Amino acid sequence: MTTPHKKLRTAILGASGYTGAELIRLLQRHPYVEIVLLTADRKAGEPIEQVFPHLGGEGLPDLMALSDVEWAGLELDVVFCALPHATSQRIIRGILHATGHDFIDEMVIEQPDDYANAIKGSVKVIDLSADFRLRDPDVYAQWYGGEHEALSLQKEAVYGLPEQYRDAIRNARLVACPGCYPTAALLALLPLLSEKAISKDGIIIDAKSGVTGAGRSLKEANLFTEVSEAMHPYGIAAHRHAPEIEQELSLACGSDLLVNFTPHLIPMNRGELETIYVSLEKGQTASDLRDILKARYADERFVTILDEGAVPATRHVRGSNNAHIAVFDDRIPGRAIIVAVIDNLVKGSSGQAIQNMNIMFGFDEALSLEQMALFP
Amino acid sequence: MTTPHKKLRTAILGASGYTGAELIRLLQRHPYVEIVLLTADRKAGEPIEQVFPHLGGEGLPDLMALSDVEWAGLELDVVFCALPHATSQRIIRGILHATGHDFIDEMVIEQPDDYANAIKGSVKVIDLSADFRLRDPDVYAQWYGGEHEALSLQKEAVYGLPEQYRDAIRNARLVACPGCYPTAALLALLPLLSEKAISKDGIIIDAKSGVTGAGRSLKEANLFTEVSEAMHPYGIAAHRHAPEIEQELSLACGSDLLVNFTPHLIPMNRGELETIYVSLEKGQTASDLRDILKARYADERFVTILDEGAVPATRHVRGSNNAHIAVFDDRIPGRAIIVAVIDNLVKGSSGQAIQNMNIMFGFDEALSLEQMALFP
Amino acid sequence: MTTPHKKLRTAILGASGYTGAELIRLLQRHPYVEIVLLTADRKAGEPIEQVFPHLGGEGLPDLMALSDVEWAGLELDVVFCALPHATSQRIIRGILHATGHDFIDEMVIEQPDDYANAIKGSVKVIDLSADFRLRDPDVYAQWYGGEHEALSLQKEAVYGLPEQYRDAIRNARLVACPGCYPTAALLALLPLLSEKAISKDGIIIDAKSGVTGAGRSLKEANLFTEVSEAMHPYGIAAHRHAPEIEQELSLACGSDLLVNFTPHLIPMNRGELETIYVSLEKGQTASDLRDILKARYADERFVTILDEGAVPATRHVRGSNNAHIAVFDDRIPGRAIIVAVIDNLVKGSSGQAIQNMNIMFGFDEALSLEQMALFP
Amino acid sequence: MTTPHKKLRTAILGASGYTGAELIRLLQRHPYVEIVLLTADRKAGEPIEQVFPHLGGEGLPDLMALSDVEWAGLELDVVFCALPHATSQRIIRGILHATGHDFIDEMVIEQPDDYANAIKGSVKVIDLSADFRLRDPDVYAQWYGGEHEALSLQKEAVYGLPEQYRDAIRNARLVACPGCYPTAALLALLPLLSEKAISKDGIIIDAKSGVTGAGRSLKEANLFTEVSEAMHPYGIAAHRHAPEIEQELSLACGSDLLVNFTPHLIPMNRGELETIYVSLEKGQTASDLRDILKARYADERFVTILDEGAVPATRHVRGSNNAHIAVFDDRIPGRAIIVAVIDNLVKGSSGQAIQNMNIMFGFDEALSLEQMALFP
Repeated sequence: MTTPHKKLRTAILGASGYTGAELIRLLQRHPYVEIVLLTADRKAGEPIEQVFPHLGGEGLPDLMALSDVEWAGLELDVVFCALPHATSQRIIRGILHATGHDFIDEMVIEQPDDYANAIKGSVKVIDLSADFRLRDPDVYAQWYGGEHEALSLQKEAVYGLPEQYRDAIRNARLVACPGCYPTAALLALLPLLSEKAISKDGIIIDAKSGVTGAGRSLKEANLFTEVSEAMHPYGIAAHRHAPEIEQELSLACGSDLLVNFTPHLIPMNRGELETIYVSLEKGQTASDLRDILKARYADERFVTILDEGAVPATRHVRGSNNAHIAVFDDRIPGRAIIVAVIDNLVKGSSGQAIQNMNIMFGFDEALSLEQMALFP
Repeated sequence: MTTPHKKLRTAILGASGYTGAELIRLLQRHPYVEIVLLTADRKAGEPIEQVFPHLGGEGLPDLMALSDVEWAGLELDVVFCALPHATSQRIIRGILHATGHDFIDEMVIEQPDDYANAIKGSVKVIDLSADFRLRDPDVYAQWYGGEHEALSLQKEAVYGLPEQYRDAIRNARLVACPGCYPTAALLALLPLLSEKAISKDGIIIDAKSGVTGAGRSLKEANLFTEVSEAMHPYGIAAHRHAPEIEQELSLACGSDLLVNFTPHLIPMNRGELETIYVSLEKGQTASDLRDILKARYADERFVTILDEGAVPATRHVRGSNNAHIAVFDDRIPGRAIIVAVIDNLVKGSSGQAIQNMNIMFGFDEALSLEQMALFP
Repeated sequence: MTTPHKKLRTAILGASGYTGAELIRLLQRHPYVEIVLLTADRKAGEPIEQVFPHLGGEGLPDLMALSDVEWAGLELDVVFCALPHATSQRIIRGILHATGHDFIDEMVIEQPDDYANAIKGSVKVIDLSADFRLRDPDVYAQWYGGEHEALSLQKEAVYGLPEQYRDAIRNARLVACPGCYPTAALLALLPLLSEKAISKDGIIIDAKSGVTGAGRSLKEANLFTEVSEAMHPYGIAAHRHAPEIEQELSLACGSDLLVNFTPHLIPMNRGELETIYVSLEKGQTASDLRDILKARYADERFVTILDEGAVPATRHVRGSNNAHIAVFDDRIPGRAIIVAVIDNLVKGSSGQAIQNMNIMFGFDEALSLEQMALFP
Repeated sequence: MTTPHKKLRTAILGASGYTGAELIRLLQRHPYVEIVLLTADRKAGEPIEQVFPHLGGEGLPDLMALSDVEWAGLELDVVFCALPHATSQRIIRGILHATGHDFIDEMVIEQPDDYANAIKGSVKVIDLSADFRLRDPDVYAQWYGGEHEALSLQKEAVYGLPEQYRDAIRNARLVACPGCYPTAALLALLPLLSEKAISKDGIIIDAKSGVTGAGRSLKEANLFTEVSEAMHPYGIAAHRHAPEIEQELSLACGSDLLVNFTPHLIPMNRGELETIYVSLEKGQTASDLRDILKARYADERFVTILDEGAVPATRHVRGSNNAHIAVFDDRIPGRAIIVAVIDNLVKGSSGQAIQNMNIMFGFDEALSLEQMALFP
């Protein structure tokens, strides 16, 4: 394997959470990435093997507190930001101002050819928080409890769903990766609304997620003893991913809409499944929907539309960046059922973030994301 | 404790499955029950502790093959039938003919002490299979792949949802216990349709079940390795519980309807959760729905309507005969979300069967069903 | 059912943990118990259904802070103390002084009907913490990090393993319930050491426990995401249950000994399994060991010695107060393997505490503990 | 990446089991491997995506029945045999006779340099069954219920534990991959016995495994409902991995020995943990043992000896080819505790098989095995 002489100097902020760990797992095997900074305030000073023993033995830098980072000398090419919302916007605003190195012109990389061109600007930021997902500052303020503190960046940020916004992502300085639930819902629904195959009214998204979606924070509700052998809905009609889904679906169909979005906590680690109930536009059938999706995703590496009769299951995508989507007839005439599955930590989060990085830097989009699903 | 001199001579047919085991677990602690026959064709000749070590040490009879049973001498008072469909109808027809009693007209029960009178009449049968649930023979034939072989009994059978049909159950000779999914759906929806608070159109029942719902049969799909850390829908738009739900809902609202019913397999043993999406009739609110349900179930021992804001979880009813139901506003105006949870093996099956028995024999309805939920 | 006119006025201190919840689950169905006080400092003021929705609807008192309890007017008959160690000893010392009775010397109980006499005397305390288990204050100080603050009570306390100390428990004012791991180990080993059938040297106890053993406290290591699909040992050669096991085994064999005790965390809620490796005394066989245990426990309600070939499994005792023990030949001559299983929250904790209460008050020892295991 | 012009033509026999699937998952990303044959008798004719949807979309050959394979034209370079024992020996004997192509001399591969030399012989076979693990035909017959049918091959086969037999593997035509349990036990114990740091007497191996170790076959004991929330030992003192462990340990210490080996089934998919109890030779300490292991494995890519205090957990190696081993003081003087973890499907089976392939063909030993562990 011929690697370029210089690898992307990469930072992961918020490296002690599960999305942070997943970024490390995947990026550490990326041929053009060198991880030079890992931050984690609560675990500052600890070696990564103490926080995540499964990532040990790789010569990774110790975890630092954010406030101790000296950005100037780091010469970062790319920053993955896996911090809590609100914190993210402050840090990212700071980075984009502070780093200030406009040209990495000394960087000469032989191939892939486009790569050198791609990074000739300044540092690029890939944000995994919710801070730059919502385009309307009022909607942000309403759902996240306060004014946005980096409004110009919010305007600049590109919504990082590669299958929808690949061209914009390619030239973006700041990419806001979609939430895990929106990723699955949008992959399933955007083409159908664009093609006016389904009604924009009364879309019902019954979502089920493994527990990693709740992160590594200490909450009684996330204890093994509370979750195991149990399930329950949460955030009913009030989950922050609802406005995010609505924003993108509204853009696709050209007018505002509201969706029902009801997530459930399932006793498993990884995996997200959405059962989506839709009304067909006149003359449309489930089979038509399947054809639209198949055509739309024919050239996509990570999205598979299943043949009639095949049933998606989260185990088929575990640990991989793949999305599986299937369409079914409803028993009620004029309706259809769409089922989409992803691994919330990969396509729903860290994997998609890396897919975005690959696009932003002109790499093969699948670099370090080629792993097949781990089953059982 | 003053027990009557004579206990009900009780048979459990199909005792090597999970519903069979659950019947034993609960009935063996019932003060008025004596288990005198356990059948299980594949395990014939084995002591119960070999098949279910958790039920050992109780002096229960060994398992017999159905074909070896000599019914005449058994003097059974009650038969629980946990056999596969089609088999059930044949066996039950045989039992009711063989025992030779046509009706228990002398049956007058005022209090438990008098129950000895109650069993002077003929044997009573409580069927846990699907064979006598569907009232329309054509619907049965369509969904279960063949003509019904006991049509007159099918007409006679009472649908064993106590909260709906308590009076008919009290006088029934044959009770057909509802399926687990229909139990939760009907408890939630029947009062709302009766009161015309919700539309009968477009009802969507997204159901999630633990794996015991699939029984103890050997299927690759039910291996630990296939189910654990995984989830998937099944029987989409084609599950046999859909016509059962539709039958009862149609009766409640006075005209035919179709529902969307989509079950999912969840990596846990017990527990069933249904998230039901409904359209409100004009002027109704989620709060009105809650009030209707609270009023309807105020006197019911096993159905609890949660206060606003409380969220049902399967762990709250595990191992118990309780159903918890809650109503939520939908984000889409004019709609509401209803969430119902039960333990599929108890209220969804064996517990409800025993609740029916208690009613049929004039006992306190909660006898042997008083256990609180087991959590964690 | 003929209940006495007066029920035991019962307090549960530390009711927001899992052992507290399990005490409520079982005691609330005890015919001679009335729960009049529930404390939980972090949840003070909350109704129990908010903390444990599975225990709702029973008219239980709200949770109180310990410091707000006015002991004088409570007229408690029995206190279950499920508090952290160190706290326990202070509270129990306070209770036994505050209630002001020194001994129940007039206590003569012959049958449940007479139990009203039994509670004329002083309150009795059943402690589920570790505070009164260790007889030697130095050993306590060494393992629990400080001097004991109620030394006279420590001397008075009876170690609450009913199968070993039933007579002393019957007359005790303060019972110290064994730890979950010691319960299983002692039931298996005490008779064998007493009978000199096994060597006291080199006993190896490889223990595996479900996660409820770790309680409901917020630790990263107990998150679902950390525990599920994973296992690991902990407290290797340094677990506090080791000296407790050694104390009782030393008493049984008449001289000091050390054991290897290595616990492991297993991804399940309930259940504890100990695989114990022992050297046989000359002339002894695995079969002899089985015979000794069978003879020893022939009259015990909750201890079953399995026949040759049968294999214990935690699922066979889940939710019940039963212990299953089996003996196996080792492949290495002169050695044997003993396997013991219990439900750590029942026989290993709250169930055994109630068994002790039943003994202390002259009730049938199995009252409220008759439930069969819940499987699956 | 510069791949050689020709890839190894690779067959996987028994591709519908979990080890087969794991071989496909890993080999399909190996730069020098082309899978040209997949067999699975019960699933013959099915495309792989039907049997393992997580492996779909890769253009893999459909599954064939073994009896339908026309070996002659396949020009296989390497065969992975994941068939049941007894079947394996017959098939492998057939292959090694039938294929008969002695030189793949047309194969010209530029680099890695040694590779062309490595495959100049005929097809190579890597067996994952137990058929060629035991060196003594009598021991084989005793434990596997019949005479071995390929005795000369049994003599020729090399035991495929790379860390122990790397040189012999490099030149082998037939490699017998170790069982999963022996892999972990031998990595931990071989250096210690070779160095005479521990006694060969009384070694106790308490093993715990996830359920994938039981394969994908339909047994009631492997149903989710039987395994979940449960654990139990099995094959006590009679597991076939015991003689395999003893064979290799005896070789290491120069005389026969017997071990206690007691496996337990744990409710998780992947992962194996062995807690090994040993007696120290005079003058040795746990710390000495750790030093011996650290020195022994300093240059090994897949074996990590943890520093004092660090505790192995199966989640740290899930999905990876890594083994983690740690040594602890025992509470009993003169003894020590060794804990080893692997993923049974990777280092314990398919990953180790590929590691062997890499050695046999002169590749970098870690090719396609570089994945970091998947956690959570």
